[in-house]
Amino acid sequence: MDEFGYTTEVETRYSDFDTMGHVNNAVYATYLEQARIDYFRDVIGMPLNEISGVIAHLEIDYQRSITPEDEVTVAMGVTELGESSITMEHEIRAGDDVAATAEVVQVAIDRGTGEPSPIAPELRDRIVTHEGF
Amino acid sequence: MDEFGYTTEVETRYSDFDTMGHVNNAVYATYLEQARIDYFRDVIGMPLNEISGVIAHLEIDYQRSITPEDEVTVAMGVTELGESSITMEHEIRAGDDVAATAEVVQVAIDRGTGEPSPIAPELRDRIVTHEGF
Amino acid sequence: MDEFGYTTEVETRYSDFDTMGHVNNAVYATYLEQARIDYFRDVIGMPLNEISGVIAHLEIDYQRSITPEDEVTVAMGVTELGESSITMEHEIRAGDDVAATAEVVQVAIDRGTGEPSPIAPELRDRIVTHEGF
Amino acid sequence: MDEFGYTTEVETRYSDFDTMGHVNNAVYATYLEQARIDYFRDVIGMPLNEISGVIAHLEIDYQRSITPEDEVTVAMGVTELGESSITMEHEIRAGDDVAATAEVVQVAIDRGTGEPSPIAPELRDRIVTHEGF
Repeated sequence: MDEFGYTTEVETRYSDFDTMGHVNNAVYATYLEQARIDYFRDVIGMPLNEISGVIAHLEIDYQRSITPEDEVTVAMGVTELGESSITMEHEIRAGDDVAATAEVVQVAIDRGTGEPSPIAPELRDRIVTHEGF
Repeated sequence: MDEFGYTTEVETRYSDFDTMGHVNNAVYATYLEQARIDYFRDVIGMPLNEISGVIAHLEIDYQRSITPEDEVTVAMGVTELGESSITMEHEIRAGDDVAATAEVVQVAIDRGTGEPSPIAPELRDRIVTHEGF
Repeated sequence: MDEFGYTTEVETRYSDFDTMGHVNNAVYATYLEQARIDYFRDVIGMPLNEISGVIAHLEIDYQRSITPEDEVTVAMGVTELGESSITMEHEIRAGDDVAATAEVVQVAIDRGTGEPSPIAPELRDRIVTHEGF
Repeated sequence: MDEFGYTTEVETRYSDFDTMGHVNNAVYATYLEQARIDYFRDVIGMPLNEISGVIAHLEIDYQRSITPEDEVTVAMGVTELGESSITMEHEIRAGDDVAATAEVVQVAIDRGTGEPSPIAPELRDRIVTHEGF
């Protein structure tokens, strides 16, 4: 069984591939972003663009290159909830292989001041309910 | 004085900016890549595409958003040399502010097998000479 | 009935949208490219990367902006076959609306010389069969 | 002497290059966009983002591929001024070679209705003055 509660497909694009025929390292961050958007829409039921947040931390460990033949999926889940931060763990998969693991920390901000602010109660409730904290 | 030995400019593009008017988080990895290419060409004197390497680890701490008005520079240097790995530290700057700090680990690979291989002696020598290890 | 013989879906990405919240004009060309790859794989049965060709002409008429809520599809077909050129017409759709129409001319090239060369007979046969020229 | 009144440099990025080692066809549209931004800022003295406009037409004729070694410049000028449309001609150059020629039509819009609207008098005056219509 999958340790992650959620998996989503990502369509690779021809322009994702570099001169070596591998997905460029920066594009992995785009795949994580697409997965995050899917997760918040499908699982949490709140579109990411309605959540005032910014990415504070991104960490990717690359394990194998992704080629045009690969079907890419991203498995992910929220692993930690702070006062204003949401920590997410991800596995980017190429077929059955792990292509990369990644951690992203998103911080809720007050749109007026741009400063960190507490996660909205409804968002917190939904994440807690889904992830079973 | 700058703790980093090398600084290079990066041209932002209109397409780097997201719906919030900020440089998208994944694009920071592209800025790091451009800086890396400049560093290896200008400082080390070996074009990055002649160095058989892959990115093994990427870590970015975002500190402030980048807007269209900002002049972006990347300061960087090699901070650690392993048997087959090169660790680089970076500061992405928006004007005089630190927009992000980042660490990238590149691993030399044998193009035939795709496995990690020792850093080529000439490349090692040049890095040691420049960075003063 | 659709005047185009083939329609395929394109996944928009958050990074496709500009500061106005619309898909950037250059990204339409990427959508056309993805549709072309799908068409050659699904309809013609020859992966685009096995066909030695380059884009010689691209023409897009933009009719309406694409927003994050839109489902994007591309309808396309080959409309003309020259000695070495393949002309394709496209309609990029946002839901039921036409977001853009586009023409792309691809030219077969000899990989050795880089010069235009006759379209391979098998490719020509398959296009003729499918498009009913 | 150059038939175009304005030329600007564009920095290529490693991620612009496809698996063949050539700049991807869609990226040419991004180069045109960067040149347009430079032109309106440097020549016309009005930042493009202050001009309410959308791209209505894009047409590119590709003449030679661009490789990582090439210095890329874009020469451009306004060639026609309609009631609400601005037609621009471009030459994308790789070193001394013409890599592509391109036409872009931008249409002024009323931000409220999204409909075409007359070009602002000040913008029209500046273009006329510079281009010598």
